[in-house]
Amino acid sequence: MEKLTVIKVGGKIVEEEATLAQLLDGFSKIEGRKVLVHGGGRSATAMATRLGIESKMVNGRRITDEETLKVVTMVYAGLVNKNIVARLQSMNVNALGLTGADLNYMRSDKRPVKDVDYGFVGDVKEVNADLLADLIHKGVVPVLAPLTHDKKGNMLNTNADTIAAEAAKALTKHFEVTLVYCFEKKGVLRDENDDESVISEITRPMFEKYVADGIIQGGMIPKLENSFDAIHAGVSRVVITKADHLGEGEGTTIHE
Amino acid sequence: MEKLTVIKVGGKIVEEEATLAQLLDGFSKIEGRKVLVHGGGRSATAMATRLGIESKMVNGRRITDEETLKVVTMVYAGLVNKNIVARLQSMNVNALGLTGADLNYMRSDKRPVKDVDYGFVGDVKEVNADLLADLIHKGVVPVLAPLTHDKKGNMLNTNADTIAAEAAKALTKHFEVTLVYCFEKKGVLRDENDDESVISEITRPMFEKYVADGIIQGGMIPKLENSFDAIHAGVSRVVITKADHLGEGEGTTIHE
Repeated sequence: MEKLTVIKVGGKIVEEEATLAQLLDGFSKIEGRKVLVHGGGRSATAMATRLGIESKMVNGRRITDEETLKVVTMVYAGLVNKNIVARLQSMNVNALGLTGADLNYMRSDKRPVKDVDYGFVGDVKEVNADLLADLIHKGVVPVLAPLTHDKKGNMLNTNADTIAAEAAKALTKHFEVTLVYCFEKKGVLRDENDDESVISEITRPMFEKYVADGIIQGGMIPKLENSFDAIHAGVSRVVITKADHLGEGEGTTIHE
Repeated sequence: MEKLTVIKVGGKIVEEEATLAQLLDGFSKIEGRKVLVHGGGRSATAMATRLGIESKMVNGRRITDEETLKVVTMVYAGLVNKNIVARLQSMNVNALGLTGADLNYMRSDKRPVKDVDYGFVGDVKEVNADLLADLIHKGVVPVLAPLTHDKKGNMLNTNADTIAAEAAKALTKHFEVTLVYCFEKKGVLRDENDDESVISEITRPMFEKYVADGIIQGGMIPKLENSFDAIHAGVSRVVITKADHLGEGEGTTIHE
């Protein structure tokens, strides 16, 4: 089976010229089949502000009313996605920008209202990866914006980490998949005050011991739980690393 | 050779709810392989106004400075394109929204400055239709936004009529292509004051006689010249009709 790397980068990296240039340079050098998944939250907030639309966040998630949905659709699928696609093309990477509506590759349900009404936010229900896999086999590099659709005519705002994990899982039918999450540190740290104390490898038993010992805590626990979920669903390994270390084989590798 | 219909609709039709719904209903009922090309100028102008950016037009073309390029990229590739794609998906049409940068399917040169500096406006130089044709053969319906790229990392604003004609011409290698231009009248009129006086068929000799007799004049002359260019390049026929008459076999058919 061919190898495939799915790389997720946050909004901050793709929204600033210097970090974007460095990211795309690193990404273009990754050998073999690949997919890029991007955020864009800061640009969406900035555009909403310019348009006089208030950005409301609950638990780090954007409340997406009808006006906000238009903003995120414009910013994620238009501004951010096409800037990345055009720049990758200039580096001879045959990029194809996609939302979940395109090729119906990712369908969501609008999140049910419980304590919070998140509005037009999607929970992923179905991934159709066959056409995507075909294109990847032909050398195409999908660039996935954090948007899905409900197949009833509406776009839905969807977390980029979720898009990356769901795409990676569905593509395991066609590829041996590595899922890479870029974040602001070089990897999972043994000592949060020492940026060089990267744990190079974590398996499920090691993870449980690190949590019991208090070495891994806070927001890193759900991130690693999600990584093990992806591995359980067939992803070969998950790497947590810094965007400017792409392709250098550093960071923390999570595997069975 | 399989038949393919390439339909171009202006911004006005896709930007208003009632006309868009009618268009997509008609479009979804067209049998066989198809491509939709859309504009979006009114939405771009409205968004530019909300953002305090002045829209400057010369000879009906938008002067596209850096800020305006961001607006048209957001509006055409984001807002308008994804709204159409999501709605077509809800009608079980497997739509895929594209700019020329995606799959590098249409490359332009930035228009050289002569009397007017149009800014980031593209003149089409190269169409790579092979991957597009592959997807169409698999049942995918491309939805083309009026944007190309220069393969140097920049998006370029490009006239939707041009996108439609260039895509249609390139796809003649793979399909028997009909190119349909939707406009506000039912077709080319024998009497401009009588909306029912549609000329059903125009060949090159008929066109020359109509022009000599003063029946066809003004802006319709370049529109028909472009149609004959497309036919000369291999397009089987060009149809000029009204958007709400799609698939009803009406309008004016231009052929050799």
